Amino acid sequence: MNEQQQCICGLVPALAVIGGKWKALILWEMNDGPVRFGELKRRVQGISEKMLIQALRELEADGVVHREAFHQVPPKVEYSATEFGASLNAVLEPLCRWGEQHMERIAAFQRE
Amino acid sequence: MNEQQQCICGLVPALAVIGGKWKALILWEMNDGPVRFGELKRRVQGISEKMLIQALRELEADGVVHREAFHQVPPKVEYSATEFGASLNAVLEPLCRWGEQHMERIAAFQRE
Repeated sequence: MNEQQQCICGLVPALAVIGGKWKALILWEMNDGPVRFGELKRRVQGISEKMLIQALRELEADGVVHREAFHQVPPKVEYSATEFGASLNAVLEPLCRWGEQHMERIAAFQRE
Repeated sequence: MNEQQQCICGLVPALAVIGGKWKALILWEMNDGPVRFGELKRRVQGISEKMLIQALRELEADGVVHREAFHQVPPKVEYSATEFGASLNAVLEPLCRWGEQHMERIAAFQRE
């Protein structure tokens, strides 16, 4: 068994945190700093409000997202990546670059 | 808009290929060379035969997995990563290492 193969068990916990359709996209949106709920809803195309709420709760429970409520009028809630979340975003970047690089090829395959 | 934020669109096509619960794990298993269906079924813990068949079809349709049927008795079918699939596995490695590094922390969060 070589070094790469041993890593199978690492992908399982990583996907427990950002697996599924939306969570990686949501966390990625926090790469540049805190974002508000409405902004996330707009930026993550196709997500419903219910799914976004659920995903944010899970990301928060897993310690990668921090929720900050500002007691002001109107009330304001911001979501940001924790340090742990930022370390996850950092390793998502190569995957993101890959998708960017092969976007047309992937779209062509998926049309077939 | 900085460089990282522009990459949001790269994560969407990447997740179109290996999003969901199983596909990244299945592709990762081909990192060391061709694997047979039964081997995949054993190694990807918790996957049903039906889900594995479906995921392999999708990975094949997206050009990341190659299916090779050997006409022998008993029949043998092997799955391997294409060159395109290997390039995807390469960018999954940092994510895998992250999961490996933080495995205990993630398990603790998920138990809560």
